[in-house]
Amino acid sequence: MRRAAKLGARARGVAGLVTQNTRPTPSSPAPRPASSRIQTHDSIVSRSLLHSKSRDNNSEALGTVAKLVSDAAATPVLAPKNPQHVTIADILDRRAKAGRLVAGTAAYSDSDMFKGPSSGKPKAKRWDYHLTDESKAREPCMLKQAAKHLKKPGLISLGGGLPCAENFPIESLSMKVPRVPHFSEEATRELGSELRIGKYDVAAGESEYDLSIALNYGQSTGSAQLMRFVTEHTELVCRPPYADWRCALTVGSTGALEQALRMLCDRARHDAVLTEEYSFSTALETAAPLGIHLFGVAMDAQGLLPDAMDAMLRDWDPAQRGGARRPHVLYTVPSGQNPTGATQGEQRRRDIYDVARRHDVFIIEDEPYYFLQMLPYAGKTEAAAAGGAQKTSPANEESVEDFLASLIPSLLSMDTDGRVLRMDSFSKVVVPGSRVGWITASEQVAERYIRHAEVASQGPSGVSQVLLHRLLDTHWGHDGYLRWLMHLRQEYTARRDVLLAACDAHLPRDVVSWNPPAAGMFHWLKIAHEAHPDAGSKSVLAIEDDIFNRCIAKGVLVARGSWFRTERGEHASPPTDLFFRATFAAATPENMAEAIRRFGAAVGESFGLE
Amino acid sequence: MRRAAKLGARARGVAGLVTQNTRPTPSSPAPRPASSRIQTHDSIVSRSLLHSKSRDNNSEALGTVAKLVSDAAATPVLAPKNPQHVTIADILDRRAKAGRLVAGTAAYSDSDMFKGPSSGKPKAKRWDYHLTDESKAREPCMLKQAAKHLKKPGLISLGGGLPCAENFPIESLSMKVPRVPHFSEEATRELGSELRIGKYDVAAGESEYDLSIALNYGQSTGSAQLMRFVTEHTELVCRPPYADWRCALTVGSTGALEQALRMLCDRARHDAVLTEEYSFSTALETAAPLGIHLFGVAMDAQGLLPDAMDAMLRDWDPAQRGGARRPHVLYTVPSGQNPTGATQGEQRRRDIYDVARRHDVFIIEDEPYYFLQMLPYAGKTEAAAAGGAQKTSPANEESVEDFLASLIPSLLSMDTDGRVLRMDSFSKVVVPGSRVGWITASEQVAERYIRHAEVASQGPSGVSQVLLHRLLDTHWGHDGYLRWLMHLRQEYTARRDVLLAACDAHLPRDVVSWNPPAAGMFHWLKIAHEAHPDAGSKSVLAIEDDIFNRCIAKGVLVARGSWFRTERGEHASPPTDLFFRATFAAATPENMAEAIRRFGAAVGESFGLE
Repeated sequence: MRRAAKLGARARGVAGLVTQNTRPTPSSPAPRPASSRIQTHDSIVSRSLLHSKSRDNNSEALGTVAKLVSDAAATPVLAPKNPQHVTIADILDRRAKAGRLVAGTAAYSDSDMFKGPSSGKPKAKRWDYHLTDESKAREPCMLKQAAKHLKKPGLISLGGGLPCAENFPIESLSMKVPRVPHFSEEATRELGSELRIGKYDVAAGESEYDLSIALNYGQSTGSAQLMRFVTEHTELVCRPPYADWRCALTVGSTGALEQALRMLCDRARHDAVLTEEYSFSTALETAAPLGIHLFGVAMDAQGLLPDAMDAMLRDWDPAQRGGARRPHVLYTVPSGQNPTGATQGEQRRRDIYDVARRHDVFIIEDEPYYFLQMLPYAGKTEAAAAGGAQKTSPANEESVEDFLASLIPSLLSMDTDGRVLRMDSFSKVVVPGSRVGWITASEQVAERYIRHAEVASQGPSGVSQVLLHRLLDTHWGHDGYLRWLMHLRQEYTARRDVLLAACDAHLPRDVVSWNPPAAGMFHWLKIAHEAHPDAGSKSVLAIEDDIFNRCIAKGVLVARGSWFRTERGEHASPPTDLFFRATFAAATPENMAEAIRRFGAAVGESFGLE
Repeated sequence: MRRAAKLGARARGVAGLVTQNTRPTPSSPAPRPASSRIQTHDSIVSRSLLHSKSRDNNSEALGTVAKLVSDAAATPVLAPKNPQHVTIADILDRRAKAGRLVAGTAAYSDSDMFKGPSSGKPKAKRWDYHLTDESKAREPCMLKQAAKHLKKPGLISLGGGLPCAENFPIESLSMKVPRVPHFSEEATRELGSELRIGKYDVAAGESEYDLSIALNYGQSTGSAQLMRFVTEHTELVCRPPYADWRCALTVGSTGALEQALRMLCDRARHDAVLTEEYSFSTALETAAPLGIHLFGVAMDAQGLLPDAMDAMLRDWDPAQRGGARRPHVLYTVPSGQNPTGATQGEQRRRDIYDVARRHDVFIIEDEPYYFLQMLPYAGKTEAAAAGGAQKTSPANEESVEDFLASLIPSLLSMDTDGRVLRMDSFSKVVVPGSRVGWITASEQVAERYIRHAEVASQGPSGVSQVLLHRLLDTHWGHDGYLRWLMHLRQEYTARRDVLLAACDAHLPRDVVSWNPPAAGMFHWLKIAHEAHPDAGSKSVLAIEDDIFNRCIAKGVLVARGSWFRTERGEHASPPTDLFFRATFAAATPENMAEAIRRFGAAVGESFGLE
């Protein structure tokens, strides 16, 4: 009988979770039957519920479908004043009208539930012929067939193997975070907010997202709660110009890139990818083992050159390219490109998009540094006078609308065809350790991506998701998060300016040249190797090696440009230019200045300068 | 000047992080130079530092190497009393002797740093001929070449693009968790411990792991701190009998399985995998798009039949198997197999391992339910008398050594060849939302696995890792965690017994039969379809469909056995048996009993029983 009493207590312990989906709680009205619910909901919800074809579930995580439940009488969402330019006010209005988000354990959701009206916009093109056999062979999970029955009132599921929240040994999570706009560490220690997330906050009517949901299995697209935030954020920032775009959460952009490449590139088809001639080495290392041929497009200070890309595609001869098919995919980092620090201006992006359309190239837009678009570099005199950083207006003096308007438009914002898969990440702008990012793409492409994620990562950590949601959505909101991003761009501007002032002070300008980076974390230093005393007898790589070794001897580590060459190996021509990459993200200001001094000394020594 | 002061403050703000790796803190002695450190350390550390060949780093996360720093004079670690049977006391002794773990941002680590002596054990065999071209083509990250320079004293790195912890907007994390042995939710609310993790706890000498490390990039193998815990746990539980085994953290076993399959199975080679004839549907859906042929081995109440496996491999004819090569990989779930609930006994596992050796088959051992090995089912009378659950001794009355001894040995524990890749997961035993698990395999296999993870998931969420580490390692310790697992097995035993008592009470035994599951979350119910009134006119699938629809109509969802058939599609023969799967993991006891009553009524109705 002791055991029976215990089981009874346990039954009450999980009642909150059950209640959440199927029974009324004291603090919420009784749910209406599904059919009447659709009638009384606004158009967003009706639309999403009718999308039954695309509804799906993680196989063992048989969840319900997320819903927006309005306690008020049905009020249609007002269209934004300017449908091409959704504002935070529009989104707040839409949320208020749509009502409470009800999304329990492993509830299915998609961006269509949270987007504004897309009337008048075209649908994305179809990309079946670009997809690989592997991607086309992906089928929805078998147990999906069961999920549709979960909405039957009173149904008891013994279907999905989800553990019971009662057996989760974490009762609550708390975190101390900044209050807007007091973002510094010092201010956070003094004034920060202590946010708490309990296990059964939803059943208690205290929250839309709690640990009983976040710590259980979830959809591979991520939770409905964070899906809503990133969908709205993407709408605010990127405004995709076609109708059927979707977001899906990722475990970070490296994993997302691997999935995208497996979706689009086939070893047996001799597929090839274009990218910048110097590119993110991890991206190259992701593609190479898959048998994907990689080709580099020439760059200038604004990154990838559209004319060079056009000429490569126009004149493509597989016989001269190791048997590779003409590339049908471009991988590009438009803002603060790694390693060159180059940022494509708006016209450059439009020109690249036009070339992609002309040759029917699909674009993977990797934008980890999009919000690290910095303020213009004011030059060495001012920077030095300000102790290594120019004076900039504090984050709370600029409006978020001005901030958004100041950002170079994304390729996604120009993407009338739906040929862009954009990768965003919280790594560089919140914390890398969250391992959370998201993609935005057409419904077709996002659906194929999700089918893969379901049998691979199964989506990001629920712990990370609930903390990000609590911080970004509930605590800061869209306005506060954009103010955090404004703060961050000032931090990076200050760091960059320290590095640039040190370069101005310590590097021999006859030998080392650079463009001030406009975004990101990286500074790309060009060495005039042709002026090196051994230029006649030594290769570029040998001179690079000599300088690098002198750097180490003097106590500074910088990355060698040759590590980032897109075309390498036996068939690649040897490099004709010599670069080093330095980051201004990590070291202290004092250490950055000292490191650049050492670098200058190493270069000077190698070149025999006095 | 205001800006300059701010930058100065910032420099101090990050000093903790810098100190952590390169400078003495007030609370720790000055580190000795690396060479003397190796001399004064115990054999574990010396060994690991000499493993420079296998040392590696995430490309953008240029970290140092984790170290164990002993403040005392060099004292060699005592060998465990019985090297084949390492105890918690041995591990505590080893930790005390090895000293403080110093592992900063993205520090490299591997299991060899934390394992006991493996003298006398053979090394694993090499599996080059089993690996795919994709796996063999994986190269260490380019930037790895830079990592070795980080140990140079005084070096300033502008190499890796790691964000500065100062820009992480989370100052501290706290969680409320159970105290051992008061594991229930009620006890946790009343007596639970509130654990706090700060941003710079390491620099303050308060911890070996903090948010400045956990929220930044990390190694794809996971943090050194959690790597130590899972390595020791694996040693306690599985005791691999060969020398060079290694662990690597994963984002969960589904993702780990996909990586393992891409490492071992090649579409172009017509590779095939053996598994149970009814298998985890997500595993099947992971393999199929990769072009992997899947074949099911006959099962009995203990799961996969070694003789059947032997016969299939012996008589393999590719022409009769759709062109598939003889399988060189077995995927098996030995404990509480999904969907059948079958658990392989010790002799069964030894026999399967012998067949694998005979035919040189590599084994993927998927063990999410290993610790959900339940207590024997006492039968319906007692269970009913105890209110649905048999009386069992409370978790704190059994010793953890007895608990470990009671578990059926893993395939890994029998693996003298190093031919097993074991997949463990925290999903079923802590929380699924952590998205953290780990693999254990030979150094060669683990190294290939890690090369892939570096360009895919990049390892699990740091947020999840630091919470798991704080709970399992710092708060509970190995003993407490094993007591939690003992508690959990009692919870699942009670849940299973409720379901079995309901089956005894409500199901027509002439038509429905089952074996009491000995592990896991699933109960597999066999329907005597040959006794169905329509057996002559309807297929097995049609009868399954009829019963399933009646179940839904009566308000119970169970999974159809046909969803789990390994061999499906046009070439597979139609099913000759009829099953349904019910889980006892999720519903409340009352709902489980009611659901089974409805299921019995649906079956009875379909069979025309009164």
